[in-house]
Amino acid sequence: MSKKQQADELVFLPLGGSDEIGMNLNLYGYGPEHARQWVIVDMGVTFGDLSTPGVDVIVPDPSFIEGENVLGIVLTHAHEDHIGAVGWLWSRIRVPIYATPFTAYLVREKLRDAGILDEVEIIEVPLGGDLKLGPFEMTLVTITHSIPEPNGLAIRTPLGTVLHTGDWKIDDQPITGAPTDVDALRRLGDEGVLAMVCDSTNVFVEGSAGSEEGVREAMTRLIGELRGRVAVACFASNVARLDSVIRAAEASGRRVGLLGRSMHRITAAARHVGLLQDIQPFLTDAEIRVFPKEKVLLLCTGSQGEPRAALSRLAEGTHPHASLGQGDHCIFSSRVIPGNELAIGRLQDKLADRGVRLYTEKDHPGIHVSGHPCREELRQMYGWVRPRIAIPTHGQRRHLVEHVNLARDLQVPEAVAMRNGDMVRLAPGRAEIIDEVPAGRLYVDGGMLVPAAGEALRERRHASTNGVLIVSFALDGKGRLASDIDMRSLGLPGDETLPLGDALDDLAEEVERVVEGLKREERDDDTAIEHAVARRLKKASQRLWDRRPIVETVVLRV
Amino acid sequence: MSKKQQADELVFLPLGGSDEIGMNLNLYGYGPEHARQWVIVDMGVTFGDLSTPGVDVIVPDPSFIEGENVLGIVLTHAHEDHIGAVGWLWSRIRVPIYATPFTAYLVREKLRDAGILDEVEIIEVPLGGDLKLGPFEMTLVTITHSIPEPNGLAIRTPLGTVLHTGDWKIDDQPITGAPTDVDALRRLGDEGVLAMVCDSTNVFVEGSAGSEEGVREAMTRLIGELRGRVAVACFASNVARLDSVIRAAEASGRRVGLLGRSMHRITAAARHVGLLQDIQPFLTDAEIRVFPKEKVLLLCTGSQGEPRAALSRLAEGTHPHASLGQGDHCIFSSRVIPGNELAIGRLQDKLADRGVRLYTEKDHPGIHVSGHPCREELRQMYGWVRPRIAIPTHGQRRHLVEHVNLARDLQVPEAVAMRNGDMVRLAPGRAEIIDEVPAGRLYVDGGMLVPAAGEALRERRHASTNGVLIVSFALDGKGRLASDIDMRSLGLPGDETLPLGDALDDLAEEVERVVEGLKREERDDDTAIEHAVARRLKKASQRLWDRRPIVETVVLRV
Repeated sequence: MSKKQQADELVFLPLGGSDEIGMNLNLYGYGPEHARQWVIVDMGVTFGDLSTPGVDVIVPDPSFIEGENVLGIVLTHAHEDHIGAVGWLWSRIRVPIYATPFTAYLVREKLRDAGILDEVEIIEVPLGGDLKLGPFEMTLVTITHSIPEPNGLAIRTPLGTVLHTGDWKIDDQPITGAPTDVDALRRLGDEGVLAMVCDSTNVFVEGSAGSEEGVREAMTRLIGELRGRVAVACFASNVARLDSVIRAAEASGRRVGLLGRSMHRITAAARHVGLLQDIQPFLTDAEIRVFPKEKVLLLCTGSQGEPRAALSRLAEGTHPHASLGQGDHCIFSSRVIPGNELAIGRLQDKLADRGVRLYTEKDHPGIHVSGHPCREELRQMYGWVRPRIAIPTHGQRRHLVEHVNLARDLQVPEAVAMRNGDMVRLAPGRAEIIDEVPAGRLYVDGGMLVPAAGEALRERRHASTNGVLIVSFALDGKGRLASDIDMRSLGLPGDETLPLGDALDDLAEEVERVVEGLKREERDDDTAIEHAVARRLKKASQRLWDRRPIVETVVLRV
Repeated sequence: MSKKQQADELVFLPLGGSDEIGMNLNLYGYGPEHARQWVIVDMGVTFGDLSTPGVDVIVPDPSFIEGENVLGIVLTHAHEDHIGAVGWLWSRIRVPIYATPFTAYLVREKLRDAGILDEVEIIEVPLGGDLKLGPFEMTLVTITHSIPEPNGLAIRTPLGTVLHTGDWKIDDQPITGAPTDVDALRRLGDEGVLAMVCDSTNVFVEGSAGSEEGVREAMTRLIGELRGRVAVACFASNVARLDSVIRAAEASGRRVGLLGRSMHRITAAARHVGLLQDIQPFLTDAEIRVFPKEKVLLLCTGSQGEPRAALSRLAEGTHPHASLGQGDHCIFSSRVIPGNELAIGRLQDKLADRGVRLYTEKDHPGIHVSGHPCREELRQMYGWVRPRIAIPTHGQRRHLVEHVNLARDLQVPEAVAMRNGDMVRLAPGRAEIIDEVPAGRLYVDGGMLVPAAGEALRERRHASTNGVLIVSFALDGKGRLASDIDMRSLGLPGDETLPLGDALDDLAEEVERVVEGLKREERDDDTAIEHAVARRLKKASQRLWDRRPIVETVVLRV
C-alpha cells in the first residue's frame, strides 16, 4: 500500500504511567502511519528512592514524540505525577499547554522555576470546556479526585470517542468542586465510547473509596475532642482536605497555621481560583510561636516522612516556629505511599517519643480516603460509559492485569494491558498492539537528564555496595616505578584483626610485585598495566572482604 | 556505702530489641552493682536494607556484657531475630547456650557455619523444663508463636519473679505444639509477678491475631478450588503453616515440592523433633520437573521479594526445576514486612505478567495470621499475669510508648518504655532506670563486624549520592608538575550540553592552575596541596552538578 492509500488510524501510546503509578505521559495519535497528529495528555514525574541514590526526580523519556507533529499538551490535573515533568520536558516538544485555571497556575510556577515561562503558551480551559486540536475534539468531563479541578477527557475523533478518565473517584460530596458528572458520563456512553483509558490504582480494593464529606465529619469529631496542640499532616494539594481541617479547627476554636512550603504554595493557588474563602486568616509564623497550644492547629507537610518537611522538623524538635510535645496530637490524614513505610515509621517513633499522640487511618478509619476508584466505582464507571475497549493505565503491571480481568468480567468486549511504549490501534478494527516504541525513564541526576541505565548511577550503586580501591603510581620512560605506590580506599572496612591501613599496605606491596613482574613489552602499555593491577587487586579484595570493589588504577608517566 | 554493704538488685537491660522489632538481646542481672551475675536471653540479628548498602546483617553491640559474669545464654525460640547473632557474637561471651531441641538444632547449624560448633556447649532443655543459673531459677512456659517450640521464661529470683514473654500470641489450636499454657500463666500471676517483659509488635492492632487452625481451613478451601500449578510462599520457619499447606495439598490430590534452601533446612529440623510426620515424601527436583501441573504444590521461599529466593526465580522464569505461567496460582501466606513493599510489588508484577493469579492476605483474609499478640491478647495476658511492672519490648519507639499507655489503662502499677542500653532496676523499690550503658548496632560489612557509624559505610553512602572525583599528578622535588594530570570520576553524569569528558578536562585545567599558582612554601607540603586542589574541585562540582562529590587528590613525588 502506498503512503497515500494508508488509512487513518486512532492510536494510544503511553510513554509513562502504564508500568507504574506515576510519571504519566500519554499520547493519542490520529492519521495514517506516515502522517500522524498527536496530542499529549499529562506530563508527570515519579520520585527516586533509596534504590536511585542521588536521583530525586524521574521523568518519562520523550524521545519518541520529539520531532513528531504534536498539536498540544493537555493536562488533566495538577498532581506532580501528571504535571511535574513539564519544566523538564517542555523544551523538547515546544507546543501549547492546555489546562484549567488551578492546574495552569501551578504549571506556571514550574515553568518559572525552570526559567522558560516566557516561552510557553498556556491556554486556560474552563471546567467542562471544549478544545479542538486538529482531529481531536475534546471535552473536559468533571470527575472527582483528591485535588481541585480534576478532569476526565472525552476525546472525539472521526474514528470514535475515547474517554481518558484521568485520576478519578466517585464522590457525591467532594467539598471542593462539583460531584462526578455522572450525567455527562452516561450521555457519553449513550453516544458510544470506543475506548476508555482508565485509572487502575485501587483495582485490588473492594468497595468504594469514600467521600471527602465523610472525612470532614470524622476530622471535625476527632479534632473537637482533642486538647493540647494539634498537628494534621496531609497532602497540600488536597484542598478539600485542607478546607475540612480548617473548618474543623475553627469549629473547635482553633486558628490554623501552615507549616511547609507547599502548604503556602497550594493555598495561594487555591485562593487564586476562588477556593478557601470565608476562613480566618492563617496564623503568621510569629503568631504560631505565641498562640496558646489549645488554640492552634498546624497544617503540616511531611506525611510521608520526608526528612526536610515540616513534620519531620517538629518530630526532631528543630522547627523554628513550632514544637510538639507531651499532650499534643498528630493526625495523619494521609495514606502510606508504598516505599515510605520505614521513613514514616521513624517519624512516628520520634513523635511518640516526645509524648505526641498519633492518629492514622489504620487506627482511626475515616480520617483519610483515597482519591482513586475502588472496584465498585470501576464497575459503576464501566456501567455508565460502556466502552468497547478497556485500556487500564495508572498502575503497575499487576494492577493493569487485574483491571483487564475485571473489565472482562464486566463483559467489556476488548481489554488490553499496555506497557509503556506499546502503541495500540484503537480503530479501525480490533484493538491491537501494532508497534513498540522506545520508552523509559530519564533521571534528573546532577541537574542533567540522563538515561536510567546510565553509567553514573550504575557506578554509584556499585560503589555503594562494594566500595572503591584507588591505586596511583608513576612510571618512568622505561616502565620502572618512579614514585611510591599510593593505595587508598573508599568504603572498605577494617577491624582489629585486619586494620584497614595494614590491608592497604599489603595491597600496595602486591601492586609493586605486579609492576616489577611486568614483561618488557608490557612496560609501555598503560592499559595492560592497569588491567594487570586491577585484576590482582580484585582478587585480593575478594579474599580480604569477600567483595569486588571498583578498582581505579592510575598510571602516571614521568 | 562500701561495696560489701551494697544490696542485691534485680535489673533488666536490653542491648537490642527495645528500639526495633528484631535484633533481640536482653540481659537480666542480679546482685550488688559491683558483682552482678547475668543471664542473656536471646541473641538475634536484624537485616540491612537499601539504607545500608553492602550490609545485609546487623547485630547488637555486645560490648557492655563482654567480660561480665555471664552465667548462660537462654534462647526462647529459633527466629533469626532471636538466635541469628549467636554465630557472630558467641566468641565474645563464651558461655553455655540453653535451648529447646528445635532451636538447638538450628543453632548448631549456625555455629557450624561460623566454624565454632566444637567450642560451644549447648544444653537442650525440654519444653516446660527448668534451668537454674546462679540466682536465676527459670522455667520455660509454653506459649504459641509462628515457629515450633516457642517459650516464655518465668525467671524466679530472691527479689521476685519476672515473666519474659518472648514472642507470643494466644492460639488454642496452633497445629504444632501445645496451646498457650494459660494455667501456668495464671498460676504465675497467683504466685505474684514482679515484672513482665512483653512483646509489643501488634500493640496498634485491635482484636486477636487469629489461629493457625483458621489458616489451615482457609488454605484447604482455597487450594481445593484451584486448577493449574499452585505455589505457596510463606516463612519456612512457620512449620505449622507448612504442615497446613502440605495437608491441604494432599487433600486436593497434590504432592508437595520444596523450593528454597530454608524450606529444606527447616523441614529437616522439624522432622528431627518429630514434626511433619505422616506426610507423603516431598517431590524431588526431578519429580517437580515432570509432575503434571494439577498434581503439584510448590512451597516456596521468597515471600518478601528477596531477589535470589525461589519465588523471585519463578517470577523471572529462571528457576531450574519449576515454572509458573498462565492459569497457575501463587498464594502469599505471609505478611508484608515493613520496608519490603516495593520488592514484593515488583515480584508480584512479574508473576501477574506471566498470567499467574495472586492471592494475598489483603484480598483473601484468613490465609495468614500474625504470630504476635494484638491488643485483646495483651489484655488477656495482663489479666492472667498481673505484673507489678510492665516492660514493653520487641517494638519500635511508638510501639513501646503505646504499650506503656495500654498497660497503664489496664491498671498495671508501673510501666517503663526502655531504650536499648537502659538498665532498669526492677527490685528493690520502684522500677527505675538507673544506668545507661553503651548499646548500638554492629554491621556485618565485608565479613567484619564494624560500628554502625563506621567510616566505610559512611563513605559508600556519600559516594552513592554524590559520586567521586579522583585527581592524580606527580610533582618533582621542587613541587613542579612532572606528569599529566589524571582526572577521573565515578558516578558523575554528563549530557549533550556538558559531556563528562569535557567536564573532566576543564577540571584538570583548574587543577593545573591551582598547582601552578602554589606559593613557594606550599610546594613541599602535600597536605596543603591536596586541600587546595580538593577545595577548588568541590567548588567546581557544585557549579557543574550541584553536588559535593568525594574528592581524592593523589600527589605523587618523583
